[in-house]
Amino acid sequence: MTIKSVLLVNSDRLNHSIDRLAEIGERPNGGVRRIAYSTEDLQARQLIKIWMTQAGMTVRIDTAGNMIATYPGQIQKAAALATGSHIDTVPLGGRYDGTLGVLAGIEVVRVLQENNIKLIHPLEVIVFTDEESSMIGSKAMSGNTIKDTEYYHRDDRTSIKTCLERIGGNWNQLSTARRSQSEIAAYIELHVEQGGVLENVDKQIGVVQGIVGQHRYAISVTGSPNHAGTTPMHMRRDALVAAAQVVLAVNNLGNKNSGSQVATVGSFNVWPNAANIVPGKVEMSLDIRDIYQSHIDELVGQLKQELSVIADSSKTQIAIERTLRVEPTLAKPQIKDAIASACQQLQLSYYHLPSRAGHDAQEIGRFTDMGMIFVPSVAGISHSELEYTSPEQCSQGANVLLQTLLQLDKMYPV
Amino acid sequence: MTIKSVLLVNSDRLNHSIDRLAEIGERPNGGVRRIAYSTEDLQARQLIKIWMTQAGMTVRIDTAGNMIATYPGQIQKAAALATGSHIDTVPLGGRYDGTLGVLAGIEVVRVLQENNIKLIHPLEVIVFTDEESSMIGSKAMSGNTIKDTEYYHRDDRTSIKTCLERIGGNWNQLSTARRSQSEIAAYIELHVEQGGVLENVDKQIGVVQGIVGQHRYAISVTGSPNHAGTTPMHMRRDALVAAAQVVLAVNNLGNKNSGSQVATVGSFNVWPNAANIVPGKVEMSLDIRDIYQSHIDELVGQLKQELSVIADSSKTQIAIERTLRVEPTLAKPQIKDAIASACQQLQLSYYHLPSRAGHDAQEIGRFTDMGMIFVPSVAGISHSELEYTSPEQCSQGANVLLQTLLQLDKMYPV
Repeated sequence: MTIKSVLLVNSDRLNHSIDRLAEIGERPNGGVRRIAYSTEDLQARQLIKIWMTQAGMTVRIDTAGNMIATYPGQIQKAAALATGSHIDTVPLGGRYDGTLGVLAGIEVVRVLQENNIKLIHPLEVIVFTDEESSMIGSKAMSGNTIKDTEYYHRDDRTSIKTCLERIGGNWNQLSTARRSQSEIAAYIELHVEQGGVLENVDKQIGVVQGIVGQHRYAISVTGSPNHAGTTPMHMRRDALVAAAQVVLAVNNLGNKNSGSQVATVGSFNVWPNAANIVPGKVEMSLDIRDIYQSHIDELVGQLKQELSVIADSSKTQIAIERTLRVEPTLAKPQIKDAIASACQQLQLSYYHLPSRAGHDAQEIGRFTDMGMIFVPSVAGISHSELEYTSPEQCSQGANVLLQTLLQLDKMYPV
Repeated sequence: MTIKSVLLVNSDRLNHSIDRLAEIGERPNGGVRRIAYSTEDLQARQLIKIWMTQAGMTVRIDTAGNMIATYPGQIQKAAALATGSHIDTVPLGGRYDGTLGVLAGIEVVRVLQENNIKLIHPLEVIVFTDEESSMIGSKAMSGNTIKDTEYYHRDDRTSIKTCLERIGGNWNQLSTARRSQSEIAAYIELHVEQGGVLENVDKQIGVVQGIVGQHRYAISVTGSPNHAGTTPMHMRRDALVAAAQVVLAVNNLGNKNSGSQVATVGSFNVWPNAANIVPGKVEMSLDIRDIYQSHIDELVGQLKQELSVIADSSKTQIAIERTLRVEPTLAKPQIKDAIASACQQLQLSYYHLPSRAGHDAQEIGRFTDMGMIFVPSVAGISHSELEYTSPEQCSQGANVLLQTLLQLDKMYPV
């Protein structure tokens, strides 16, 4: 079998679109600043709409401002297959994060159109609103938005009502953006990895196992502040010595061979924080992520036991309180299989890995079947002007997206 | 043998003096605020001078503002025996720190005077200037002051020249305050412990082995700041995880059974200190104290080896730099023996311990024989309105001081 026997995207056309879109919000250092609802975002949406229309799609904007382009299927009333991502960036972002998924989706439709191919299912390419901050676009589709407008205020205090109006949405009708599996049978998103795993294992494509859940905790250690000169070692209740043990316990938890979890103490503050005083108090954060909720629960349970042992031995009090809980979203096994099979067909190497960053797919996966395809990020860098994925890697990802959609089209009943 | 057969101080008179002096700078909560050079300090010095004079002493002020009261000896040209301490306090201080040593010295002379006793040596009772901040009084006697006036500026920007003038000193002639062993044969200081060791071992008197030396270091750990979600554990260079190991290594150093050292990480700052970012940098202080300089050097050498191992295993860089070095001052063995023998004579229990806080004795001990007597601080508390040593404990300390001086008078040749 040769690769030539399968349908392929036009790599030059895809990469030209990536270059062209990167001009909107382009910064002197090569990065892109295209914040949701900004002039640049509006300008990019207009260009995307033109490309979508040229590819034979009809475009609508839902009340959450999501751009939903539909390429008709053979059975127009069937639930759609959907793909997409976002085109907004962080303030100092790169050219690939989000953008690749949207432009690859459009490129897939271009290829279908020029080959006069219609899938059985309608095919949607979706640009989700404000992925980089509120994720209001995909959250509105899954019905997980918050009623309080205050939550969505921009840093410049622009209201969410104004923001959504700018892009054609409508805050007051936000609930009508909600969708279900009867409308979208399956959703698949291509994205750059934003981490260094694929590069590290030297694989071309990532088959995403799911998007990790995230628990965050506040841990406080209370000892007794004492004079660092006059208090003998055995009479101390040193909060920092206990907290150091907590940091290592958290790190051991992360390094256990039982799963793909990460566990981090990122914020860590000491009181009174003076060279000549034995620390009396430490407050720290714990961030723990894994694709299995039960595994997170199990690890936190183990940690709590260890905290109790550390508190006893160090004569300190240790308190732990949860401050954030985001449930994991698992990819659908049959979609993972389809992605792997597409890679084999295209003779691309692949690797199963969790997504440790959040994505729109995480919200869409709450109401329908979901899968994600990763392509490598050079040096694992993202959210930076140094973000880079080569033209060849981008088109490899788009080809896997195309082949996977072709398989899913046969797989999902209408 | 009964205690009645030995000369004793007048406990009521001593404690009345303590109460009376505590009225100057007394605070509503029972604490004392008598900062060096303040109105309260001047007022207290006046009262002390009256008491010294009434006890038959002649009083002079040296250029560093030290009040030096002399009770004549049988051989007036002999080098003096000296005692004393300070009467200035920290901003929120107690009634005993420093004050006890000065007032016990005066009480000793009162007892000698009323019993018509003259020692062979002249006996000096010294009030040292500004022990709680610059220690300029005792440092001027040992010739260890700094030439730069900026160093001695008060928080309110009053110059040291002005401060010394207020109390009868003279900055321009500061070097003339320097003294030598030919003037002071031996110095002995009674002080409250300012720690909890004596209470912990349930002993009445502390025989001080020496005043610890203090080294201070700045330690920095440099790793790599990364996304706490997308960076797998094995690809991290977590500065906090490495720094936690440093904290435990320092604590182990302190807990080694090889000496009486203390080792503390008191200040500890993390960058960028955000819950979702793997820490990239940590800066911390190390404070290590012991009465033997060679032991401090040995422990720091061991730590440096451990830092190198931690840096290698955590893929971080660890740098250590000394920021302070104060040499220990050892008590003279024959003075320690005299104190212990005085305790036996008075049927008081005693315990050998280092002083982990700084005292004027540490400077005086640089040019002549030195010894210190400690009495317990209830709950180890000092530099607080909760500082407390009972009237009985105060007079026990004064009695040990008296008996020790009587012994030293026989011991030191003229």
